[in-house]
Amino acid sequence: MAYFDNIPTVKFEGTTTKNMFAFRHYNPEEVVLGKTMKEQLHFALAFWHTITMDGSDPFGTPTMIRDFSTDASDPMEIAHHRVDAFFEIMQKLGMEYFCFHDVDIAPEGNSLKEFYANLDEITDHIKEKMDETGIKLLWNTANMFSNPRYMNGASTTNSAEVYACAAAQIRKGLDISKKLNGKNYVFWGGREGYESLLNTDMGFELDNMGRFFHLAVDYAKSINHLPVFLIEPKPKEPMKHQYDFDAATAMAFLQKYDLTDYFKLNLETNHAWLAGHTFEHELNVARTYNALGSIDANQGDYLLGWDTDEFPTLVVDITLAMYQILKNGGLNPGGINFDAKVRRTSFEMEDLILAHIAGMDTYARALKGAAAMIEDHYLEGIVEKRYESFHNTDLGKSILDGSATLTSLADHALEEGGKVELKSNHLEYVKSVLNDYLV
Amino acid sequence: MAYFDNIPTVKFEGTTTKNMFAFRHYNPEEVVLGKTMKEQLHFALAFWHTITMDGSDPFGTPTMIRDFSTDASDPMEIAHHRVDAFFEIMQKLGMEYFCFHDVDIAPEGNSLKEFYANLDEITDHIKEKMDETGIKLLWNTANMFSNPRYMNGASTTNSAEVYACAAAQIRKGLDISKKLNGKNYVFWGGREGYESLLNTDMGFELDNMGRFFHLAVDYAKSINHLPVFLIEPKPKEPMKHQYDFDAATAMAFLQKYDLTDYFKLNLETNHAWLAGHTFEHELNVARTYNALGSIDANQGDYLLGWDTDEFPTLVVDITLAMYQILKNGGLNPGGINFDAKVRRTSFEMEDLILAHIAGMDTYARALKGAAAMIEDHYLEGIVEKRYESFHNTDLGKSILDGSATLTSLADHALEEGGKVELKSNHLEYVKSVLNDYLV
Amino acid sequence: MAYFDNIPTVKFEGTTTKNMFAFRHYNPEEVVLGKTMKEQLHFALAFWHTITMDGSDPFGTPTMIRDFSTDASDPMEIAHHRVDAFFEIMQKLGMEYFCFHDVDIAPEGNSLKEFYANLDEITDHIKEKMDETGIKLLWNTANMFSNPRYMNGASTTNSAEVYACAAAQIRKGLDISKKLNGKNYVFWGGREGYESLLNTDMGFELDNMGRFFHLAVDYAKSINHLPVFLIEPKPKEPMKHQYDFDAATAMAFLQKYDLTDYFKLNLETNHAWLAGHTFEHELNVARTYNALGSIDANQGDYLLGWDTDEFPTLVVDITLAMYQILKNGGLNPGGINFDAKVRRTSFEMEDLILAHIAGMDTYARALKGAAAMIEDHYLEGIVEKRYESFHNTDLGKSILDGSATLTSLADHALEEGGKVELKSNHLEYVKSVLNDYLV
Amino acid sequence: MAYFDNIPTVKFEGTTTKNMFAFRHYNPEEVVLGKTMKEQLHFALAFWHTITMDGSDPFGTPTMIRDFSTDASDPMEIAHHRVDAFFEIMQKLGMEYFCFHDVDIAPEGNSLKEFYANLDEITDHIKEKMDETGIKLLWNTANMFSNPRYMNGASTTNSAEVYACAAAQIRKGLDISKKLNGKNYVFWGGREGYESLLNTDMGFELDNMGRFFHLAVDYAKSINHLPVFLIEPKPKEPMKHQYDFDAATAMAFLQKYDLTDYFKLNLETNHAWLAGHTFEHELNVARTYNALGSIDANQGDYLLGWDTDEFPTLVVDITLAMYQILKNGGLNPGGINFDAKVRRTSFEMEDLILAHIAGMDTYARALKGAAAMIEDHYLEGIVEKRYESFHNTDLGKSILDGSATLTSLADHALEEGGKVELKSNHLEYVKSVLNDYLV
Repeated sequence: MAYFDNIPTVKFEGTTTKNMFAFRHYNPEEVVLGKTMKEQLHFALAFWHTITMDGSDPFGTPTMIRDFSTDASDPMEIAHHRVDAFFEIMQKLGMEYFCFHDVDIAPEGNSLKEFYANLDEITDHIKEKMDETGIKLLWNTANMFSNPRYMNGASTTNSAEVYACAAAQIRKGLDISKKLNGKNYVFWGGREGYESLLNTDMGFELDNMGRFFHLAVDYAKSINHLPVFLIEPKPKEPMKHQYDFDAATAMAFLQKYDLTDYFKLNLETNHAWLAGHTFEHELNVARTYNALGSIDANQGDYLLGWDTDEFPTLVVDITLAMYQILKNGGLNPGGINFDAKVRRTSFEMEDLILAHIAGMDTYARALKGAAAMIEDHYLEGIVEKRYESFHNTDLGKSILDGSATLTSLADHALEEGGKVELKSNHLEYVKSVLNDYLV
Repeated sequence: MAYFDNIPTVKFEGTTTKNMFAFRHYNPEEVVLGKTMKEQLHFALAFWHTITMDGSDPFGTPTMIRDFSTDASDPMEIAHHRVDAFFEIMQKLGMEYFCFHDVDIAPEGNSLKEFYANLDEITDHIKEKMDETGIKLLWNTANMFSNPRYMNGASTTNSAEVYACAAAQIRKGLDISKKLNGKNYVFWGGREGYESLLNTDMGFELDNMGRFFHLAVDYAKSINHLPVFLIEPKPKEPMKHQYDFDAATAMAFLQKYDLTDYFKLNLETNHAWLAGHTFEHELNVARTYNALGSIDANQGDYLLGWDTDEFPTLVVDITLAMYQILKNGGLNPGGINFDAKVRRTSFEMEDLILAHIAGMDTYARALKGAAAMIEDHYLEGIVEKRYESFHNTDLGKSILDGSATLTSLADHALEEGGKVELKSNHLEYVKSVLNDYLV
Repeated sequence: MAYFDNIPTVKFEGTTTKNMFAFRHYNPEEVVLGKTMKEQLHFALAFWHTITMDGSDPFGTPTMIRDFSTDASDPMEIAHHRVDAFFEIMQKLGMEYFCFHDVDIAPEGNSLKEFYANLDEITDHIKEKMDETGIKLLWNTANMFSNPRYMNGASTTNSAEVYACAAAQIRKGLDISKKLNGKNYVFWGGREGYESLLNTDMGFELDNMGRFFHLAVDYAKSINHLPVFLIEPKPKEPMKHQYDFDAATAMAFLQKYDLTDYFKLNLETNHAWLAGHTFEHELNVARTYNALGSIDANQGDYLLGWDTDEFPTLVVDITLAMYQILKNGGLNPGGINFDAKVRRTSFEMEDLILAHIAGMDTYARALKGAAAMIEDHYLEGIVEKRYESFHNTDLGKSILDGSATLTSLADHALEEGGKVELKSNHLEYVKSVLNDYLV
Repeated sequence: MAYFDNIPTVKFEGTTTKNMFAFRHYNPEEVVLGKTMKEQLHFALAFWHTITMDGSDPFGTPTMIRDFSTDASDPMEIAHHRVDAFFEIMQKLGMEYFCFHDVDIAPEGNSLKEFYANLDEITDHIKEKMDETGIKLLWNTANMFSNPRYMNGASTTNSAEVYACAAAQIRKGLDISKKLNGKNYVFWGGREGYESLLNTDMGFELDNMGRFFHLAVDYAKSINHLPVFLIEPKPKEPMKHQYDFDAATAMAFLQKYDLTDYFKLNLETNHAWLAGHTFEHELNVARTYNALGSIDANQGDYLLGWDTDEFPTLVVDITLAMYQILKNGGLNPGGINFDAKVRRTSFEMEDLILAHIAGMDTYARALKGAAAMIEDHYLEGIVEKRYESFHNTDLGKSILDGSATLTSLADHALEEGGKVELKSNHLEYVKSVLNDYLV
C-alpha cells in the first residue's frame, strides 16, 4: 500500500455525506433481492484503463500522473509496481474481480518468447496478490489489435503468419486463464473486420474466424480448462466495420459456425450506442439467444460518434440495463467490468478512485431501482396484461400450442371481419412512473 | 395508353443526347458480361411509390398530380384506372417486372371479406394486363403496418386477434402470388419491432414471428406454390427498433427458427444506410450466408436520419452494389425493384418517367462499370494477391485444410519470433483507380 | 365541459400516490426560488399536437380517438368544438398559456379570404374563452409549410407569388396576435431551407428571408403591437437543410440582417438533438447572445434521426435545461410550450391528460433539482473556482480589463518558460453528485 | 533528393495509363476556364500528416516507415531531415504551397525559449528551401491542443497562465508568417470548446476568445504583416463541443466580436460532414457571408462519427465543392491544402506520393467537371429559370427593390385568392444529368 496512501480510506458513510471518497449508494453487504450487493454486481477493475491509460488522445499527448509508472525505468520493474498499484486500488474500492489484456501487464519485449517469459513472471506476481487478497480473475484477453502486425486483423488477417501469431497469443492467454483460474475468456475483435470492402474477402475472413474459435475451444478442452468464451461486439472503430457489429450479428456468426455451446456475449454500453442500440436492447437480444455472459460497464455520449468509454453516471440507462440483468438471473460467472477511463482532464491519482466510486454508485442505484420495480411487479405487470389474449383465449392458445394453421387463423379473422379491439399503451404515463423508481 | 400520351415515347438514342425522355445509358438489349442488360437487371416497378404515393409528408399535404387517381370518384373505378396507368408506365420504360402491396391495388372496404373481393377483381385485371404485355410479378406483399390494428405489430403484436388478421392477409397474399405466378414473396416488418422495451416481451414476440413464418411456409406448400420468401431488413422507422434490423440480424433470426431453407433477403440501399452500413456491405453479408435474394433500389441521404427513398443517382455506391450482385451470379429469381419515390416537388406526371429513367440509367452505368472491373480482374486481382499466403504456404494451407491446431500455429509463431512481413494496401491508389471505372 | 367529463378532475395529492390523473411533482402554488411553480414555468398547451394531430405517420393511417373532431361534419362546427375541448384540457391541467398555428384553429377554405373569415370567427370564440378563463396566448404562428404552395419555402420560395401569400398569412397572424394580446410571435421555417443545393440560390433566399422579417417588424410597429419575435431553429426535416439550423446559425443570420433588436429564439429539445447538440447547449448559446426567448418542451430519441416530439420524461436532460433557464432569470415573456404529441399507440382521449401530466411533472422535478443546485451554489461554485486565475491574478486581470497585449502576455509566458500548474476537473465526481440533485 | 529516390519521378502521361506514379487527370499547365490548373487549384502539402504522422490510432501503435524520421537520433537533426523530405515531396508532386503547425517542424524542448530557438533555426532552413524552389507558404498555425497545458482550451482555457502561453505561440506564429511571407494564418480551435457544460462558463470563454483574436490582429498590424486570418470550424473531437462548430457558428461569433474585417474561413470536408452538412453547403454558407478563404481537402466516411481525414476520392462530392469555389472566383490568397493522411495500412514511403496523386487527380477531375457545368450554364440556367418571377414581374421587383410592404404583398395575395402556379423541380432528372458532368 504505497501509491494511494495520500488518499483517504474509502468508507461507507451512507448517502447523505458528500465526502468525496465515500460511496453514497453502494454498500457491498446490503441485501437486495435476497443477495448482497457485491454478489449481485460482481464488480471488476480493468487493468488497461486504470493502470496503463495515459490520457493521450488523437490530438493530445499524455496528461496522467501515475506514480506507479514513473518511479522506475526498467520496464519489468514498472510492470511489477503496476500490479501492486492495481491490487491496492481494488482493495480500496472493495472490488473482488479484475480483467486484463496480455500486453497491459507485461512488456512485449523483442520476441514472442521474451513476451511469454515476461508474462510468466508477472502472472506469478498476480497469483500471489490473488492468494493474498482473495481477489479473482473475471476474465483475461489477448490484445490482437495494437501491434502493427494486426493492422489487417488477427484471425481475419490476410496473412497466414499473422494468424499464427494470434494463435500464439490465444494459447498463452488460455494457459494464463488456467493458471489464474479465470472464469471467462474474452475476444474483442478490434481489427477483425475491414477497412475497405474493395480489398476484402469477407466470406474467407469469417470462415477463418470461425476456424480460429474452434481451435481455441479445442485447446481449452485439451488443457482441461474451459472458461466461458465471450465475444464482445462493437460495430466499428478502429475499423470501418467490425465483424461482431452487435449482439445479433455475433449470434448469426456463432450459429453459422456452430459455436453457441461455448460462446456467450460480453456487452458494452458504449458499443451498443455506437451500433444504434440502447444498452438494454443489446442485453435483451442476448437474453433471447440465451447468451448474456458478462458486461463492460461504461457509457458514451449519445451525440458523439466514437467510443468515449466514460464512467457510467446516467442512472436511467443503467437502471434499465440492471433490470435486464436481474431478469437474466444475474451474470454468473460473468460480472460488471469497468471498461471506463477517466477523462484526460481528470489526470490526478485520486480520480481513479473517485471515478470508480461514481460508476459503482451508479450501478448500486440502478440495482436498487430495478429491484424495486421487480418487487412491485411494475413492468412485468404491464407486460402480462398486454399480452394476455395469447394466454386467456382459445385463439391465442392455438397459436402458442402449435395447433393453429394459417387457414384456421385467417378463417377466424374473416369471421370477425378484421375488427379488433385495441387498448392504449399509455406509454407516457409508464415512462413518468419509471422516473419514480430511479434512485 | 391514356395517361402518359402527352409524354414522348421513350427512345434509346444513346448517351450523348440530353433528350429528357430518353435513356442515356440503359439499353435493354445491349450485352454485358454475356447477357443482355435487361436480363442482368430485372427491373421492377413499385405500385405504391408510382401510383398511390401522393407527395404528402409529416409536415405537408399532398402535391402530386395523378390523373389516373382523380378522373373518377368510385374507389374501385380508380383502382382499375391505376392498374392501367401502372402497366402503361412499365411499357413506356420497358420494364418487365412489378411489385405491390395488397392495399396498394384495391380498397380495403369495410371488412376483410370486402377487401378479398376487391383484390379478386383487381388481380383479374392485373392478370389480363400481364397476359397482354408479358410483364411478370417479381413479388407481392401484404401491408401489415398502415392499418391501426397493426400499431403494435402484426406477427409480433400483443393481440392474438391481430395476429389472426395478419394470417388472413398472408394467406390471401400467397393465393394471389399463385394466381399471378409470383417468383418471390416479401415480408417487410414495418411494425415488427418495438416502440419501447418497457412494455415489450421481445423473446415472446420473436417466437411468434418465427411461428408465423412457418405457418406461411406450410400454407405455401399446401397450395403447391412456394415462392422464394424474402425478409426485407430495416433498422427502425416507423418503430424505434425493428426486429429485422439488418442482414446479419435477419440471418441470426432465420437460423434460430430454422427458416434458412425458405427465406432469403430483399435488401434496400436506404435501409442499409439507416443501419449504419453501406449497401455493398449488406449485399456481401447476404452473400456470405447464401441468402441474397432481391433488392430494393433507391438511395437515401447520408446526412439525414430517415428513409427518403430517393431514386438512385449516386454512381459510385451503385457500382459497388452491382459488383456484389455480379459476384453473386446475379439476382435470380430476384430483381431490382425501384422502391423509390419522386420528391414532393417533382409533382408532375412526367416526373414518374424521368425519375425511373434516372434510376435505370444509374444501374446501367453501374452494371457497365462493375462488369469492366470484372473483365479487368481489377478488385479480384487485388484480393487474390492479398490473401495468397493462405494458399501458397504450408502454414496457410494447414489452416485452411483443418490440419493446424492452436499449438502447431503457436509453435510456428514462436519460432519466427512473432516477426511478419507486411505489405501496404495502397488503399488510396485503389480508390483512385476505382474512379476510372465509374461510367 | 363535455369531452373530458369521464376523466377525473386533476388533483394535487402529493408525490407518493400513483393515481394516474394526479400530478406527483407539479404543484402550481408551491414556491421555488421565491416564485410559485406556475410563475417559474409558464406552461402552455399546443393546439396542433393536442387537438388536430390524428396519430398518422408516414407508414400508418390515423389512430386517435378524438370525440371533439368527430361529433359533427361541418368543418366550422368542428373548429368550434375543438376550441372548447382545448380550453377544457387547459383548465383540467391548470395551464395558463396556449399556442397555435393559423391552420390549426380554422379551415383554410377555398381562398385566403375565406380562410381570414374563418379565422375571425374562431378567434372571436377563442377570445371569449380567454376572457372567461383568464388563460393567455403565449404565441401564435402561421403554418407556411403544409400547403403545397410552400413546397419550396415561404419567405425563401423561388416564387414571388408564394412570397406574397406568406406575407398575407403573417399580416393576419400579427392582427390575431394583437386581437388576442399575444406576448410572442413565432417563425418556424419548416420549408425555409433547401431540398438540394443544385437548384438553390442560398444567398438570394437568405436576403429574401431577411427582407421578410423586416416587413413583419415594420407592420407590427404600424399596428402598435410589437410582440417578441421568435425564430425556432431546426436543422432539417422536412427539408434536407433548414436555414435556422441551430441557435448559433440563427444568430449569425439575425446579426447579418440587423434583426437582433426584435428577434429572440424559441428553442426545442428535439431540434437541438437533431442538430447534434444537447438542449442545455442551445439554451446556453442563446444566453450568450442575450436571445433566449421561449422553449418548446419535448424530447426525441437520441438514437433516432427524426423529430419524434415525445413528451419530456428524461429528468437529467430537463434538469440541466431548467438550470440554464433559471440562470437566464426565467423565460419572460416566454414560456414552456409542450410541442409534444402522444404516441400513435396512446390513442385514447385520456392520454392527452396523462401525457401532459408526465411532461409537467418532469419539468417540476427539473425545476426543483435545478433550484437546489442554485441554492447550494453547486455548479456555480465549481465554475467560480475553476476560472479564478482570471480574477485574482494580475495577469488574469490584465486580460479582462483590456490592458494586456499579445506581447505582454507572450513575454510573461516566456519568463515562466511555458510552465503552468493544472488541476484536475474531477468531472466523474461532478457528474455523480449531480445525480443526487435529480428529483 | 534522398528519401524518395527509389520512387520514379512523377510524369504527366495522360489519363489512360495506370502507371501508379503518374497523374491521370491533373496537368498543372492545362488551361481550364482561362487559367492553368495549378493557378485554379493552389495545392498545398501539410507537414503534419505527411511528415510527422506515424500511423498510430487510439487502438494501435505506429506503423509508418519514414526514413527521414529514423535516420538520426538528435531531434534537431531529424527536424532538418524532415524539412528536406517535405520539400522533396512537393517537388515530386509539383506542389507550390505548404502548411504547418509550429510543433510539426521543431521540437518543443524544455521551455518556450528553447522552442523559439528551435523554430528560428528550422524556419531558416525552410526559408532557404523556399528560395531555392519557389515554393510558398499558404499558411502556418500554432498547435494549441496537443500539449497538456491546453487540456481545457487555449484562448478559452480556464487559466490565465495558459492563455498567456497561447499568446506566446501566436506571437511567434505571426513572426514566422512574416519571415516566410505567409498569405494566411489559421486558427483551428481543437480544444476551444468544452468537455462538459457542468463546469464551463461559455459566455466568459467566448469573450476571451474574441479578445484573443483582437490581440492577434493588433499585433499583426504592429509588425506590418497582416495575413488573412482564417478560422477552421469543426463541430467536435477532441472536445465534446467546439466553439467553431461550423461556418454559420463561426460567422455568428465573428460578427458578435466585430472581427469580420480580418477573418475568413478555412473549411474542411470531413469537418463539414461531422457537423451534419455537405461540404458544398459549408462553402456556400461562407460565400453568403463573403468569407470563403481557403479549404482543407480530404474526406471522411459518412457512416463513421470521427475525423478520418482520408484523401479525397469521392468525385461527386468534390465536383460540387469545386463548383462553389469557381462561383467564388477561386480561392485567393487561399488554396487547397491536403489535410489528409494515408491509412494506417498504407505505411510505405511511396504511399505518400500515391495518396497525394489520388487526391490531386480527384480535384483535377472536379475542376474539369465543375468548369464544364459552368461553360454549359448548366446549374446556373436552372437557377435563373427557377427564380425568374422575382425579376420579371412587378410583384417580384417590388420585393427586391424594397418598395413592397407586408400590406402590399398581402393585398396582392388576397386578390389572387392564394392561388399560385407551381412547376416541378424535376430534381431526379437534374441529378441524373449531373452525373454526365463527372469526370
